[in-house]
Amino acid sequence: QAVEAGGGTMKKRRCMYEVHVQPCLVEMFGTSLFVFVGCAAVIGNVEAPGAIQPAVAHGLILGVLVMLFGQISGGHFNPAVSLSIYLCGGMELLLLLPYILAQMAGAMIGATITKVMYPSGMYVASLGGAFNATTADVGKSTLAEVMMTLVLTIVVCMGTVNRKSRTPWAPFCIGLTVTACVLAGGSVSGACMNPARAFGPAVAANQWNNHWVYWVGPTCGALLTVSFIRLLFGDQRTRVVLK
Amino acid sequence: QAVEAGGGTMKKRRCMYEVHVQPCLVEMFGTSLFVFVGCAAVIGNVEAPGAIQPAVAHGLILGVLVMLFGQISGGHFNPAVSLSIYLCGGMELLLLLPYILAQMAGAMIGATITKVMYPSGMYVASLGGAFNATTADVGKSTLAEVMMTLVLTIVVCMGTVNRKSRTPWAPFCIGLTVTACVLAGGSVSGACMNPARAFGPAVAANQWNNHWVYWVGPTCGALLTVSFIRLLFGDQRTRVVLK
Amino acid sequence: QAVEAGGGTMKKRRCMYEVHVQPCLVEMFGTSLFVFVGCAAVIGNVEAPGAIQPAVAHGLILGVLVMLFGQISGGHFNPAVSLSIYLCGGMELLLLLPYILAQMAGAMIGATITKVMYPSGMYVASLGGAFNATTADVGKSTLAEVMMTLVLTIVVCMGTVNRKSRTPWAPFCIGLTVTACVLAGGSVSGACMNPARAFGPAVAANQWNNHWVYWVGPTCGALLTVSFIRLLFGDQRTRVVLK
Amino acid sequence: QAVEAGGGTMKKRRCMYEVHVQPCLVEMFGTSLFVFVGCAAVIGNVEAPGAIQPAVAHGLILGVLVMLFGQISGGHFNPAVSLSIYLCGGMELLLLLPYILAQMAGAMIGATITKVMYPSGMYVASLGGAFNATTADVGKSTLAEVMMTLVLTIVVCMGTVNRKSRTPWAPFCIGLTVTACVLAGGSVSGACMNPARAFGPAVAANQWNNHWVYWVGPTCGALLTVSFIRLLFGDQRTRVVLK
Repeated sequence: QAVEAGGGTMKKRRCMYEVHVQPCLVEMFGTSLFVFVGCAAVIGNVEAPGAIQPAVAHGLILGVLVMLFGQISGGHFNPAVSLSIYLCGGMELLLLLPYILAQMAGAMIGATITKVMYPSGMYVASLGGAFNATTADVGKSTLAEVMMTLVLTIVVCMGTVNRKSRTPWAPFCIGLTVTACVLAGGSVSGACMNPARAFGPAVAANQWNNHWVYWVGPTCGALLTVSFIRLLFGDQRTRVVLK
Repeated sequence: QAVEAGGGTMKKRRCMYEVHVQPCLVEMFGTSLFVFVGCAAVIGNVEAPGAIQPAVAHGLILGVLVMLFGQISGGHFNPAVSLSIYLCGGMELLLLLPYILAQMAGAMIGATITKVMYPSGMYVASLGGAFNATTADVGKSTLAEVMMTLVLTIVVCMGTVNRKSRTPWAPFCIGLTVTACVLAGGSVSGACMNPARAFGPAVAANQWNNHWVYWVGPTCGALLTVSFIRLLFGDQRTRVVLK
Repeated sequence: QAVEAGGGTMKKRRCMYEVHVQPCLVEMFGTSLFVFVGCAAVIGNVEAPGAIQPAVAHGLILGVLVMLFGQISGGHFNPAVSLSIYLCGGMELLLLLPYILAQMAGAMIGATITKVMYPSGMYVASLGGAFNATTADVGKSTLAEVMMTLVLTIVVCMGTVNRKSRTPWAPFCIGLTVTACVLAGGSVSGACMNPARAFGPAVAANQWNNHWVYWVGPTCGALLTVSFIRLLFGDQRTRVVLK
Repeated sequence: QAVEAGGGTMKKRRCMYEVHVQPCLVEMFGTSLFVFVGCAAVIGNVEAPGAIQPAVAHGLILGVLVMLFGQISGGHFNPAVSLSIYLCGGMELLLLLPYILAQMAGAMIGATITKVMYPSGMYVASLGGAFNATTADVGKSTLAEVMMTLVLTIVVCMGTVNRKSRTPWAPFCIGLTVTACVLAGGSVSGACMNPARAFGPAVAANQWNNHWVYWVGPTCGALLTVSFIRLLFGDQRTRVVLK
């Protein structure tokens, strides 16, 4: 973590690369793998009952990727997660926008690969793993996204940013929370909790019905999390009141 | 854990907050998230066969919440767990009643959110995730609750209170035990093991059939656990006989 | 672990209790909980497809119990496991027979509780969770038990006895291996791998068809494991040849 | 790990054995257990819907075996994994070919045992757990194998070779990645990701339709992984450019 400030252009270039470029590349690459596995699990799940297969696939691959790439980029792979971590004091502002753009680009790559890989019949039948909130229940879908993103980002911020509660098992906690939330809310809104995960297959499959739900819901959930942690549940360093 | 006793009113207020208020808030908040995810997984599971989806959802979210909030409040989220931990010597009496009230309040909040979030057809069909022991087998249901709460609280007390057997992986052990117990006893009594988990959706869905089963069963299970640990399985410090 | 040799009868009685009596009680208690949860998951699984529910329930509860009681008794809960651990040098001969008897007694207790707890219709339909190898394929069933017990006891002995490979995560490894083996061989022989697990419900439900398969198979599997570890895969301390 | 260079032929023979022979035996033995459990889970899964049973069985047994045998041989059990680890600098060239041959031999042993163990009706109906890419979609199947092996070997190399990201939980990460990938791609190509896993049952069941897919796909995936890590995601020691 501590980068030795040495002499020479060579050394500086490496610093630049490892501190600013590699994390963004890792966010793009990791998000593409996450969206690839996630969408593929939804598309391949057409004939199986219930949400257990997509729930387990999303949760496990996310937990593993956060575990492996967390040392390099923090392992967000989710704009709502990046936002909540930034607002809780866990990353610098400079990286926020590059991370979000990298996540969106990675999601498009991952979703495109699933489109090429799956037979088009299965791809079309499952909307390519895209989310598609029905207009009748768009309010309920938005509430579901708010609530489940609240759960996910509480786990992320308490497990990785807040000093009193952070733990080396946070990556598994994050993955398993995704599994639990997909089982809990998958039948209402699809349980996306991640604007990039929604954006990628929406581009690849050209499905934009109520797409805004998957940006507004997770953003509100992330802001709720930040309020709870900054006002009530953070330790002395993270909390801004009652210090 | 060690709170430095400094001067000034400011410092004391913080102590008060972190030692007495924050743990109760965390119990309320954590229980509301647990009941939200748990009830939602039951409601959303209507069309899928077996108990695997609710079992996995309850277990994973509980394990994660205990891992994250355990440093602050102990992460009980369950009156039967609080009772058994208190009687095994793992918490002070002063917090027992506030914890139980906070858990009941949190459970009502979580259950109410699922009611708003799910379409009312699915909500009614699944009784809102409430437990509903049939009167014919009410004795068997009570026995099931006793036995499964015994298993759960044995894991909690051996994993977090008893010095010889406690382990940093106790949170995952607790969550996975809930998953196993729901698979084991879900078809008899619903495998509640938690009066607060029963109380929240009972209020939200107004379902009170044999509700007492989910208070009497878990309480007896917790008392059995305390007997086993205090008399037989505790270490020299926890055991009260044969020292 | 180090028991201070002090004076007085009081002290000696405690030593006796913690060194010889408590481990046997723990084996009985743990086996009764394991068999209770395992049989209940089989009985409650009648309407669900596949073996995933019993597989997950057996694996998780075993992993958790080994994690918690391992410090006290080693957490065997299985005569085949006790045999293989003894022959690999991980326990003293004096405890072997008491452990096996305690495991058989515990299994009867656990199985009897499931009989009382479940409605008799479900209990009879599932043979009370007892194993029932068909006579036509009794050879294949025995082979399945040999092979799957080989896998299980290899994991137990490499993970807890052999110094080069032992790991604090052995309890979870053991539990997850049971889950994998039930998924692998459940449709041939039921994937028992444990004479006590077979014995308990056989007594409670009075089902003795080819019961010997579940004693002969696991015993042969345990002996095969010991051969592999003592001759080929152990470290210098455990291996008896090529030192 | 450090082998003391002592005198005498006896000592040298042990070195030889523990350094060169035992790892190869472990690769053969571990691969035979992995292929045994994996094929058995596929054969026994005929009546259950979806891919969850084979996905969970493959992932759990692989994670456990890597955890236990990783200290001895590295725990590859997969020629594509051995290739990627060698090219990332995690093993010596001398062992590469022996490892691959041992893995192929082990896979044949494991697959043969499943053939003996299962009733021939079930064995034939499931092709003995062999992979069988349909010729119509052979390109899509190859792409699926490339992509999923890329995910698996990224996890292996980042988790065990790359110093900045390696972690003691890598074995579980590897196993869980296999589970996620089978859920993601099982319905396209079967999600083999392992030439040895394909080779064993192909020999036992004599199924060679498009068998090359399961050698070409994983090999290309491994080479892609090596490119990504050596050029972009490795730490200063592993990366060959931008140092």
